[in-house]
Amino acid sequence: MSSQAWLWLTTVIMTLGGLGILLVGKRRTPTEELQTVLHGIVPIIAACSYFAMAVGQGAVTLPILPGAAAASVGDTRIFYFARYIDWFFTTPLLLVSLAISAMHAGPKRSGAITGIVLADVMMIVTALFFGWSEIPEFKWIWFAISCVAFLGVYYVIWVSLMEANKLERDDVQTHYRRSALFLSVVWFIYPFVLLVSPDGLYAIGDTAAIVGILVIDTLAKVVYGFMAVAADGRITERDLASRTTTTSTTRVAA
Amino acid sequence: MSSQAWLWLTTVIMTLGGLGILLVGKRRTPTEELQTVLHGIVPIIAACSYFAMAVGQGAVTLPILPGAAAASVGDTRIFYFARYIDWFFTTPLLLVSLAISAMHAGPKRSGAITGIVLADVMMIVTALFFGWSEIPEFKWIWFAISCVAFLGVYYVIWVSLMEANKLERDDVQTHYRRSALFLSVVWFIYPFVLLVSPDGLYAIGDTAAIVGILVIDTLAKVVYGFMAVAADGRITERDLASRTTTTSTTRVAA
Amino acid sequence: MSSQAWLWLTTVIMTLGGLGILLVGKRRTPTEELQTVLHGIVPIIAACSYFAMAVGQGAVTLPILPGAAAASVGDTRIFYFARYIDWFFTTPLLLVSLAISAMHAGPKRSGAITGIVLADVMMIVTALFFGWSEIPEFKWIWFAISCVAFLGVYYVIWVSLMEANKLERDDVQTHYRRSALFLSVVWFIYPFVLLVSPDGLYAIGDTAAIVGILVIDTLAKVVYGFMAVAADGRITERDLASRTTTTSTTRVAA
Repeated sequence: MSSQAWLWLTTVIMTLGGLGILLVGKRRTPTEELQTVLHGIVPIIAACSYFAMAVGQGAVTLPILPGAAAASVGDTRIFYFARYIDWFFTTPLLLVSLAISAMHAGPKRSGAITGIVLADVMMIVTALFFGWSEIPEFKWIWFAISCVAFLGVYYVIWVSLMEANKLERDDVQTHYRRSALFLSVVWFIYPFVLLVSPDGLYAIGDTAAIVGILVIDTLAKVVYGFMAVAADGRITERDLASRTTTTSTTRVAA
Repeated sequence: MSSQAWLWLTTVIMTLGGLGILLVGKRRTPTEELQTVLHGIVPIIAACSYFAMAVGQGAVTLPILPGAAAASVGDTRIFYFARYIDWFFTTPLLLVSLAISAMHAGPKRSGAITGIVLADVMMIVTALFFGWSEIPEFKWIWFAISCVAFLGVYYVIWVSLMEANKLERDDVQTHYRRSALFLSVVWFIYPFVLLVSPDGLYAIGDTAAIVGILVIDTLAKVVYGFMAVAADGRITERDLASRTTTTSTTRVAA
Repeated sequence: MSSQAWLWLTTVIMTLGGLGILLVGKRRTPTEELQTVLHGIVPIIAACSYFAMAVGQGAVTLPILPGAAAASVGDTRIFYFARYIDWFFTTPLLLVSLAISAMHAGPKRSGAITGIVLADVMMIVTALFFGWSEIPEFKWIWFAISCVAFLGVYYVIWVSLMEANKLERDDVQTHYRRSALFLSVVWFIYPFVLLVSPDGLYAIGDTAAIVGILVIDTLAKVVYGFMAVAADGRITERDLASRTTTTSTTRVAA
């Protein structure tokens, strides 16, 4: 299959995935509605980006300078900048959704949310500069900065949000730990694929990089999204049940 | 009148409109202050965009490819990209303002607000790609995607926000329904003007498209803004009156 | 020292400044955590921008048109657009932080926060257009618009936020007034430096402009940041003390 065919296929997967999540996700409480909307819109944004790449509007052909990082043949490479625009919008949305699921009933720690979003935006913007750069030394400094920002994202997930999550109900804790683990593992693969892709060392070709990223993109957006709204549905179920049996409202102000 | 003269005229209208709204809009409660600020700043952002277009910095000349969508004469067209930057900022602000007026005293449904803003941003960004594209088949797919996102905006206005609005006081309901109707009708005209404008079929010329859009822009930003702050003032009036006569504070945390 | 050496030096100062603020800033309450995160991330964003300028990716060489505003020799000037991207993100963060410190215990006036952020973004975007423009008459209109937006920022600081701040505890008032004064004075220098810099009149050279801006950038981000988190720490100290001695929780929902 050609690069383009894979990009079209992913456009379809993302569109159906997003619509599917919007369809199966429930909206019985403000929090559940917000989670459904966030997880449903993320693949739809990705679908727009994949469509742009499939029709050739989301990429530019860049020259490979002599002495550039690229290890592979060819004088040019295709730089799919649309990915980074997609990630600029979708990764903060996924992290906000994760933060909300961490702090379900307790007060929202806005410093943690602000911190994770800013670290994430810095990670994506510097990754864009990594992909765009030609001069090896600067390319790899951008890569390193992006990785450090990624550590900042991990820090908030596993320290700040985990701390807040420990005050929550059992099922909320289980859901958060599973989501945090799934997201951390899947996101961990991205820098390695980018490292060997044409944006980095060019150790793998254009099509291989596209297939690699589409697999993790599908896991990180569609599979993760369905899992998240399902788990959130079960938590909301219990919220609503406890609200009926007791007089104390556990309703969460979203 | 030349295109440029119309653009200068609209710059003046938007500036005066924005300052006028900031002047007549009151700030007696946090909500009222937020509404006044939102409606006042929207035309001022538009004024900057119109100024950029008037001085030639907000547009680029694009070649019309053979077989392009354009039905009209000429090898080039002027693409006013500044419009889309204006809309990228102003349309979410108008929708946030509408959502706040829907949920005046009740809890804010953050899922609905997030959903409408994301659908709107997607509508504007894909409309930008529509206007920018040359190859007809892709141009019209972008147009279609933008229209679908527009339906998402309508869905939140007429289903999600309407639902939340039904729990509000009578006058808040009347105000929301009027604003939602006015906005829905005026915004509905945009895709038709864009469709026939040089960005689309080029069935009407540059100046005609500018005049068409300036009329709906003035309705959607200035006229709508004055109406909204006036109605919001009356609602705040009643809030403050009921707060004085009863002990129950109806003060809305903005 | 060359321009480039100064840019590298500032990259180091900003990185160390940001990490230092994150290290000394405390996180005992949601508000304190948010303040520490905001002030710590601001210099780190600036560091990325200075790094980009140091390696030559954050600037473009623009021709100086005949009759252009530039008073100095040369046919070209280096336009450091990365500054404006830095300011686009960092100045709203600093103002949000200032607004939070103004309204410590009382209700947050979201209209004031929205207003100051929008005025600030308009100030930065129009300053970018000022720096980018070649044709003198338009360049200076952008400059004038940016200055008017700056007045809007001052208005919110000294009228709206001051009003809200008068309802706060003594130490919160003192902290806000000092921060507002420091920020107002330091920010006031920027338009003058830009006016005489190569982006404006070109009355001073490239290196002089870089040094001028690095001094105020360091004051506005690093020095201001350390001062702000220190003062916020003392306020939080008193919050926590009063929470222990009395039963009334003064805990601020951030």
